[in-house]
Amino acid sequence: MPEKPYKNIEVQGDKSSDVVWHQASVSHQERVLLNGHEPAVLWFTGLSGSGKSTVANAVDKMLYELGCKTYVLDGDNVRHGLNGDLNFTDSDRIENIRRVGEVSKLFVDAGLLVLTAFISPFHADRELVRTLLKDRQFIEVFIDTPIEICEQRDPKGLYKKARAGEIKNFTGIDSAYEAPNSAEVHILAGTKSVEQCASQVIQYLLENKYIQQNDHSENTKEA
Amino acid sequence: MPEKPYKNIEVQGDKSSDVVWHQASVSHQERVLLNGHEPAVLWFTGLSGSGKSTVANAVDKMLYELGCKTYVLDGDNVRHGLNGDLNFTDSDRIENIRRVGEVSKLFVDAGLLVLTAFISPFHADRELVRTLLKDRQFIEVFIDTPIEICEQRDPKGLYKKARAGEIKNFTGIDSAYEAPNSAEVHILAGTKSVEQCASQVIQYLLENKYIQQNDHSENTKEA
Repeated sequence: MPEKPYKNIEVQGDKSSDVVWHQASVSHQERVLLNGHEPAVLWFTGLSGSGKSTVANAVDKMLYELGCKTYVLDGDNVRHGLNGDLNFTDSDRIENIRRVGEVSKLFVDAGLLVLTAFISPFHADRELVRTLLKDRQFIEVFIDTPIEICEQRDPKGLYKKARAGEIKNFTGIDSAYEAPNSAEVHILAGTKSVEQCASQVIQYLLENKYIQQNDHSENTKEA
Repeated sequence: MPEKPYKNIEVQGDKSSDVVWHQASVSHQERVLLNGHEPAVLWFTGLSGSGKSTVANAVDKMLYELGCKTYVLDGDNVRHGLNGDLNFTDSDRIENIRRVGEVSKLFVDAGLLVLTAFISPFHADRELVRTLLKDRQFIEVFIDTPIEICEQRDPKGLYKKARAGEIKNFTGIDSAYEAPNSAEVHILAGTKSVEQCASQVIQYLLENKYIQQNDHSENTKEA
């Protein structure tokens, strides 16, 4: 058994059966120190087909290779799990975003850079998530792709169904997308490659000292 | 800008405006590799006042000092946030545990050792969480403290209120606690110190190869 792990655990005296237990816990600052970067939510927002999830995953990959602790929350791992009880009514959509915000907050508290990829079309919902977090912890990333391009891509055939009236309240067709007016990162993604979009996010994180070019990436550069 | 982060991002050709984007993503196995330990949920269960949260935080501290990536989910960070919309009705208590299970699953997917501290009195609810996770990812830790000791401690004065009839359906008083019959770790906590209880959990993780005594702890042993 290692010696070190028990060294800092203080145990107070045993007063017969009425044991008074000292609560030792790891502070947020200690978790940040272990990871070597500042935690935050990178909140990707944009139309269906804009490339939110693709860019978020590309950024995630770059951060991973810099040795950062990260996680991506998107429809794939949230819709059928945590939010499996929710539908697409207005109140359920708000609750969907609220829960993603609260879970993001837990991940940030754990010291991670968490990337979320949800359309999140309404300003008020995104601001609600911003208020859950502390200063610098909420980074809004607007994937600004013209709807014509999104509709041309239509990876899931949703625009086609919305145009045919088979889907109601589809963002950009018969439901509003309220574009952010002061996103921390605004990416004109329609004419850029995934690499260029992701690099713009990484550049923001470097310039604002969330991450740094560390030895980890130097060591593996020539591999 | 670092060279390395962009190396593994493959970008497919730009076919005019119809850009086909390659989805690069970090695999679960890659996240595990970066952290250097196997992720899992340590699901602490036991009566109110049994010491679940205290022991979980002590284990967390020990794991932190071994360089493991960890997080504690308990009433403090879940009840008022993610589960702030839930009450103490039967259905809300089940939903509370379900959400904690789903969030734990996300943390495990992110590669962390997550420690949860909830009474979770019902066998069926704990088993529901177990089924959400893969083999080895759910470790039930039963903090088995006699109710007499819990009631004597009564850190939040809840037993007193339950005895006075001010709280209904209180676990151990007028609502059942279904003790696990095959918990991975069964701690007879009534006569042990926090350190002894936490060490028993660490011992389990070492013996079952979730964690190892690594260089990190060696380096700091004499500090």
